[in-house]
Amino acid sequence: MVNAPLTNDEIAKHNSADSCWVVIHGKAYDVTEFLPEHPGGSKIILKYAGKDATEEFDPIHPPDTLEKYLDPSKHMGEVDMSTIVAEAKVADPYESERQENIKNKPTLDQCYNLLDFEAVAKRVMKKTAWAYYSSGADDEITLRDNHSAFHRIWFRPRVLVDVEKIDMSTTMLGTKTSIPFYVTATALGKLGHPEGEVILTKGAAKHNVIQMIPTLASCSFDEIVDAKAGDQVQWLQLYVNKNREITKRIVQHAEKRGCKALFITVDAPQLGRREKDMRSKFDDNGSNVQSTSGESMDRSQGAARAISSFIDPSLSWKDIPWFQSITKMKIVLKGVQRVEDVVRACEAGVDGVVLSNHGGRQLDTAPSGIEILAATMPILRQRGLDKKLEIFVDGGIRRASDIVKALCLGAKGVGIGRPFLYAMSSYGLPGVERAMQLLRDEMEMNMRLIGAPTVADLDESMVDTRAVALHSTAIKDTLSLRAYDPLLAPAFRSKL
Amino acid sequence: MVNAPLTNDEIAKHNSADSCWVVIHGKAYDVTEFLPEHPGGSKIILKYAGKDATEEFDPIHPPDTLEKYLDPSKHMGEVDMSTIVAEAKVADPYESERQENIKNKPTLDQCYNLLDFEAVAKRVMKKTAWAYYSSGADDEITLRDNHSAFHRIWFRPRVLVDVEKIDMSTTMLGTKTSIPFYVTATALGKLGHPEGEVILTKGAAKHNVIQMIPTLASCSFDEIVDAKAGDQVQWLQLYVNKNREITKRIVQHAEKRGCKALFITVDAPQLGRREKDMRSKFDDNGSNVQSTSGESMDRSQGAARAISSFIDPSLSWKDIPWFQSITKMKIVLKGVQRVEDVVRACEAGVDGVVLSNHGGRQLDTAPSGIEILAATMPILRQRGLDKKLEIFVDGGIRRASDIVKALCLGAKGVGIGRPFLYAMSSYGLPGVERAMQLLRDEMEMNMRLIGAPTVADLDESMVDTRAVALHSTAIKDTLSLRAYDPLLAPAFRSKL
Amino acid sequence: MVNAPLTNDEIAKHNSADSCWVVIHGKAYDVTEFLPEHPGGSKIILKYAGKDATEEFDPIHPPDTLEKYLDPSKHMGEVDMSTIVAEAKVADPYESERQENIKNKPTLDQCYNLLDFEAVAKRVMKKTAWAYYSSGADDEITLRDNHSAFHRIWFRPRVLVDVEKIDMSTTMLGTKTSIPFYVTATALGKLGHPEGEVILTKGAAKHNVIQMIPTLASCSFDEIVDAKAGDQVQWLQLYVNKNREITKRIVQHAEKRGCKALFITVDAPQLGRREKDMRSKFDDNGSNVQSTSGESMDRSQGAARAISSFIDPSLSWKDIPWFQSITKMKIVLKGVQRVEDVVRACEAGVDGVVLSNHGGRQLDTAPSGIEILAATMPILRQRGLDKKLEIFVDGGIRRASDIVKALCLGAKGVGIGRPFLYAMSSYGLPGVERAMQLLRDEMEMNMRLIGAPTVADLDESMVDTRAVALHSTAIKDTLSLRAYDPLLAPAFRSKL
Amino acid sequence: MVNAPLTNDEIAKHNSADSCWVVIHGKAYDVTEFLPEHPGGSKIILKYAGKDATEEFDPIHPPDTLEKYLDPSKHMGEVDMSTIVAEAKVADPYESERQENIKNKPTLDQCYNLLDFEAVAKRVMKKTAWAYYSSGADDEITLRDNHSAFHRIWFRPRVLVDVEKIDMSTTMLGTKTSIPFYVTATALGKLGHPEGEVILTKGAAKHNVIQMIPTLASCSFDEIVDAKAGDQVQWLQLYVNKNREITKRIVQHAEKRGCKALFITVDAPQLGRREKDMRSKFDDNGSNVQSTSGESMDRSQGAARAISSFIDPSLSWKDIPWFQSITKMKIVLKGVQRVEDVVRACEAGVDGVVLSNHGGRQLDTAPSGIEILAATMPILRQRGLDKKLEIFVDGGIRRASDIVKALCLGAKGVGIGRPFLYAMSSYGLPGVERAMQLLRDEMEMNMRLIGAPTVADLDESMVDTRAVALHSTAIKDTLSLRAYDPLLAPAFRSKL
Repeated sequence: MVNAPLTNDEIAKHNSADSCWVVIHGKAYDVTEFLPEHPGGSKIILKYAGKDATEEFDPIHPPDTLEKYLDPSKHMGEVDMSTIVAEAKVADPYESERQENIKNKPTLDQCYNLLDFEAVAKRVMKKTAWAYYSSGADDEITLRDNHSAFHRIWFRPRVLVDVEKIDMSTTMLGTKTSIPFYVTATALGKLGHPEGEVILTKGAAKHNVIQMIPTLASCSFDEIVDAKAGDQVQWLQLYVNKNREITKRIVQHAEKRGCKALFITVDAPQLGRREKDMRSKFDDNGSNVQSTSGESMDRSQGAARAISSFIDPSLSWKDIPWFQSITKMKIVLKGVQRVEDVVRACEAGVDGVVLSNHGGRQLDTAPSGIEILAATMPILRQRGLDKKLEIFVDGGIRRASDIVKALCLGAKGVGIGRPFLYAMSSYGLPGVERAMQLLRDEMEMNMRLIGAPTVADLDESMVDTRAVALHSTAIKDTLSLRAYDPLLAPAFRSKL
Repeated sequence: MVNAPLTNDEIAKHNSADSCWVVIHGKAYDVTEFLPEHPGGSKIILKYAGKDATEEFDPIHPPDTLEKYLDPSKHMGEVDMSTIVAEAKVADPYESERQENIKNKPTLDQCYNLLDFEAVAKRVMKKTAWAYYSSGADDEITLRDNHSAFHRIWFRPRVLVDVEKIDMSTTMLGTKTSIPFYVTATALGKLGHPEGEVILTKGAAKHNVIQMIPTLASCSFDEIVDAKAGDQVQWLQLYVNKNREITKRIVQHAEKRGCKALFITVDAPQLGRREKDMRSKFDDNGSNVQSTSGESMDRSQGAARAISSFIDPSLSWKDIPWFQSITKMKIVLKGVQRVEDVVRACEAGVDGVVLSNHGGRQLDTAPSGIEILAATMPILRQRGLDKKLEIFVDGGIRRASDIVKALCLGAKGVGIGRPFLYAMSSYGLPGVERAMQLLRDEMEMNMRLIGAPTVADLDESMVDTRAVALHSTAIKDTLSLRAYDPLLAPAFRSKL
Repeated sequence: MVNAPLTNDEIAKHNSADSCWVVIHGKAYDVTEFLPEHPGGSKIILKYAGKDATEEFDPIHPPDTLEKYLDPSKHMGEVDMSTIVAEAKVADPYESERQENIKNKPTLDQCYNLLDFEAVAKRVMKKTAWAYYSSGADDEITLRDNHSAFHRIWFRPRVLVDVEKIDMSTTMLGTKTSIPFYVTATALGKLGHPEGEVILTKGAAKHNVIQMIPTLASCSFDEIVDAKAGDQVQWLQLYVNKNREITKRIVQHAEKRGCKALFITVDAPQLGRREKDMRSKFDDNGSNVQSTSGESMDRSQGAARAISSFIDPSLSWKDIPWFQSITKMKIVLKGVQRVEDVVRACEAGVDGVVLSNHGGRQLDTAPSGIEILAATMPILRQRGLDKKLEIFVDGGIRRASDIVKALCLGAKGVGIGRPFLYAMSSYGLPGVERAMQLLRDEMEMNMRLIGAPTVADLDESMVDTRAVALHSTAIKDTLSLRAYDPLLAPAFRSKL
Repeated sequence: MVNAPLTNDEIAKHNSADSCWVVIHGKAYDVTEFLPEHPGGSKIILKYAGKDATEEFDPIHPPDTLEKYLDPSKHMGEVDMSTIVAEAKVADPYESERQENIKNKPTLDQCYNLLDFEAVAKRVMKKTAWAYYSSGADDEITLRDNHSAFHRIWFRPRVLVDVEKIDMSTTMLGTKTSIPFYVTATALGKLGHPEGEVILTKGAAKHNVIQMIPTLASCSFDEIVDAKAGDQVQWLQLYVNKNREITKRIVQHAEKRGCKALFITVDAPQLGRREKDMRSKFDDNGSNVQSTSGESMDRSQGAARAISSFIDPSLSWKDIPWFQSITKMKIVLKGVQRVEDVVRACEAGVDGVVLSNHGGRQLDTAPSGIEILAATMPILRQRGLDKKLEIFVDGGIRRASDIVKALCLGAKGVGIGRPFLYAMSSYGLPGVERAMQLLRDEMEMNMRLIGAPTVADLDESMVDTRAVALHSTAIKDTLSLRAYDPLLAPAFRSKL
């Protein structure tokens, strides 16, 4: 088809549910028939009916989405973008404040720790992006407790140990790594940075750190694998599709592309309600894309939930052997939350578990991974199961001292997610690199100060966990208290 | 009697304790002789002597009050309402602020959880209505701890359970219900909405939820029963009258009208002191309707205490057999607060208990129902009594996760009161419906995330209650901290 | 001596350390030689050299002081007060604010609880008086914990008990009293009200409550006894003088005047450092009356410490038999703070102890009386000593629910001090009467709600004390948080 | 060399890395070749290239530094200081505010406790000096918990003990001292006061208190020893040098000069990251002297870390015998943090340990010394080791009641550091003297009030430590909450 490019005039006519075209990356698509099937609901598409939707589309859809889901007959052709009238944007005080903040942003070397990136990100990120990354389930108690829990664990350092040479390298699932953390899976990287998850890939490469590739990445899986350097190690995070053939294809493709381990997410049969994200979405649209009480909630809760509607809530222990049959990658269950299930994971013969509550984004008042670890390891040791599989922890880690605590308690390594997103969103690749360097510097110092020259020297006698389950704290860390963005009540319209 | 309607001039003469008439719903009544008998004290009537008192009268008296308590000879006849001069209202900055708030009220779909309704209600309700609904006893420590207690109970979720189909239905006292909460009894519904408790009836019908009808409703009992739809189930909450014949009549009438259970309130031999309510009353009247130290406190504490003066403080265990003799309805004791009394309730052969502190409105620093439940069930199980009666909990429930915790610990269901009042006061019936829908959505999600496809799958291994009785918390929920309206010291007159 | 009255001109000459006269109640005194002996230091006198000192003198010296301590030759005669020039007072923003507050003071019936009086007093009392009454030792942690401790004790109420008739009367040390609290000893009543402690006597009479007469009263002992009505019961609080003859005289005089019990203060061998009081004194004088590091601290800490310099720090257990030999009054040790000393008190044969930390004014981070009680009674019961003597508690009591908790735990009664001072300072006798009435009203309600018709029905099963010694609280009472006046750092001079 | 003095014109030419001269105390030095070797990095020197650097140089280098480290050929000769142009200082709002504060500083006798000095110091000290003294590691949780821990230990006072005569003297490591605290080692005294550590020497002399001389003092060791009065006792704090010959020389010199004990710092194989200090450094320089991610962190963290690069991280238990072989001074390990290491210290035959976390400046979330003490002594007693060595505690001590608690728990004495620095920085020697006098006054009072006339009477029955390890507190001290300077997020440039 060699037609003349479409113009604004032609496209603008298709601006209703009766005929709905949208422009994405310079091409027009007829999505009229697709409207009722859109996992994110039809309203959000109709907002862009007859217009260019690229900016909204990009962060939440991998680049191959349209090819996959829309029949070629609905591809209406190239658009003469010079004819597209940029929409007059409504003056948005939040946005102009943000632009001002970007101009006055601190220099990268003013960031001394991971929470500093969060403080910067809060002021320079787009409102909806910040809301999506920073939000947690319900009252965000678990979200915050994930971090707070580390402050209820106290060190018992050894002195007079020769700590001249510090070796913080270790192995995780058979892979040698330079430091016991990995970049855990987080969705929609392009919300924070136009290049998306490949930034994390490059940062991880620089520091010889393992990256877990998310199912819900903004970049496509192959883009992220293509971005890796040399023998850099990647793992695959998997939301299991109701259609197991699709799942099988994804898993086997990942194995073929060199992924070393498969992390099956088990804590998200349904995505949690993240009200901060929902409220931001509402504000952003000016009108409500959320369900009224009559509609299903499912399509009201922002893009993430929408694109996750394929996730299979019937996934259960009896599916594990099937995974073991389709791949030779190590298999790890991500999101285990009680010792009984760790024991069961041992019995199922998987290679590891991640004690995690999904960054506080799923079930509120679920305990932190580190608290679960403290309760779990003594029982595993008692039953002789502590060497049967590798245990990882994620959630709330902001300091190398947090990593040290997890390792003392018996974790093989820890996953870190949001801090790298904040570093990436604020400063791009240099931000991610510096964040990782800061962790290395802290780690070296902490291992010296606790008297453990190698990771193997970290043991359970070096921590005191008595306060962790009582949730009592006398002193809180100021930085996270200030970085935290509290939930708001519904906004009254401001009086003029 | 076919007299010409009375006019303002005639009525206005009777404006003192010597001759006191008031107009209610277009009729004049001579209440001179009734003044000393008015349970709420004479002052409040005298404020309206010779005037129209309808607005003040309505929310705190069921419609049949005058017929019941005032001799027909005191019914002075119809009033020509066109002659009644509307009183010039004093400019009240709180009230004009409120009117402004109502104009700018968030839309209903901006409310994402039950606390959002409270945040809206605080700003759109009449001052005295808000004070009456929101207040608790003394320092409101129990009021707030009721909610806080749920945040000291932590989940221990199961993963890899097939949770595709969630069934949240259950039975309570033999009645099948769609979700394990009921609308508990709350007084004076017309303070919040002109239609009063029937709004709750209609909301409950829509969601197939049981409603408990309060003794102190603004609507009459029959109005509330008449409002029910089809085979909707209602229960009766009962304050026991000193005159047992009246009590008997009420109970048997309720049974006849189809009520399925009788909830006898046992935690209110005297109503608690709710200072926020008292202070609001004071401010509202401009003068003091409260007792000076020389008067009895009883009539000083607002309408609720006044109209509750009939309650029998001598009610005791030895009255229970009598109730069992007069009705075949299930009998439940509402307001039990220690395990010893639950055991005694078993021995007394009642069908259930509600572990409750009356929404924090009675004895301050009484523990929350959920804390009592956590202490009670292990002892009942140990003695083999846990199946002998049904245990309910109320107080502080704002999230479906709170419901789930109660069920895990052994409750059959939970009562929810204030949140529906706030939803009703802010948005009427649609508010109540949405509040219930939000709970359903949360409940479905929580059951998925905790790994329990049915109510029967919720068990005590799924919660960690170690922190609850120590009252230690590291993280508090922002929404309730902000929604809470703190007690104030006595106000100094403002300087001009 | 019938001389012509002295005039201002004559007196004003004696305005230095070389010749120092002061006028008090219309008479002039030559205190030149007395200057170095003044327990409060010479500076404070010199501030009034050649002037009228009555206003400063009165609250901190009983009326018979000058007759007792100054040789008649130093009594210089009557003063023609019309010649005394009132000093032009420096404009004091605090004081003019206070006068404004007094004009706009809430009416008495706006006070609904004891903390309300504190909130009013804070704004209407003289700065130094407020500082003296409200201050505690060091960081005031004990001061505040005294109140907070009650919120860490939770009720376990009984229901379905016949509570129609509530009898809150009891006996303390053989005296029948209408309610189980007494007015405990507090110093310098005239700082708060010109009539001083006799106001408390009258209030106690009205409510049939026992009053403990303080050694350091502003009124003389006999004035306070003379003020009593009928068979009103009083006790004597005693600071033991280094000169035992003086002590003997005081004790035997009190017995003769009808006092029923002797409370020997054992927690004050030296008065505590109350920095809020010290700082207020500094501000008030414009110059420093406190010691520099070179001087003894003793005379720097305000009037109370000064006039207490007679107290014998060598008082010990071996003095107790002597007290038993000089009086037949009941003997109680006030300020016992550990179970070992309660046991020893039993062995010493005294009639009672007050578990008290002196209102948080002595040793900071000493535990509250109620916490000591919770730790003490189980041990006494175990050793069969719980009936050997009567146990009282004071400190932090602001609600009848606090009284109920103390009684449940085994106290015979409780002492209440500051709240009555605040009521007296804000509203005089009607304030004190209302404060007591409020306690009665609360007490009746609480006994009903906890299911105890008489004091004898209150038992240890009705309270849960697990959190008290762990000092963990989820919810704090707003009223006391707001009424508390936090310690300040030293003030920088304000820039002009 | 008798040359004409150098002038500004000549010096100003050498203002780059190619030729870099600096003026210090009126002499010019060519540091071009030294630039890459400077432990604090070259950037900070280049800032002063061709200029007078005396003000910056002094506080962080002992006076003999240049003679020691710079070849005489690089000493370029005297400078005619009249030619040196004072740099026009950039208007700094913080600095002008500070100058204003100094003018309005409270008088010394307005300081009633050690925290008062901190509140004054915060406002009158140079920004960088305050940041250096006040900062702690990472989130400063340990820094604050050191103080808070004392508030979780409660007294159990004895009454009716004869406390007329109080003797607070004791012995530490064989030395009689007037009160059981010593001035512990703190670095860089000249940041706070131009005379530096000798001020502390003089204050200690006046009160007969032992001083520990820091390795990193601004004054030279000999200056501090020379400043001592009569038989005043001093101890030596030692950072062990990688070059043991240097260490040996320092130790033996100290012994020769009369030091009585050697405190080997064992908790600082590497200095902690103190971000408040780092951030202040950044702000101060206007540009960044900190490492970018590419550089080593070591030289980025301010002067203290830089001048500490000689410290040997390989120091271990096997070095202890060598120390015992080179000196007859008592040997104490400073910074022990777990009971296992105290036991090991016993076995190693040292004379004492200091339970310390280095003032919260090293490993964050390490427990406070007092908490370690409470956990340690019962085990030592059980093993019969409690008399084998002397145990000291430092960190967070601000009140004599803190000292009393440490002694009750079994410490021989306590070290106090920052409070004397703050007193010195705010008021010089009189400040230090008053701070010590305040502690004496508090100590006398506290010993009276707890019922212990001598130090030997303080025992473990007098304290309740149940809450300390649970980190639960109901009440916090206002003064320290207000004196604390919270960590800040990276600063955005302010909009103009």
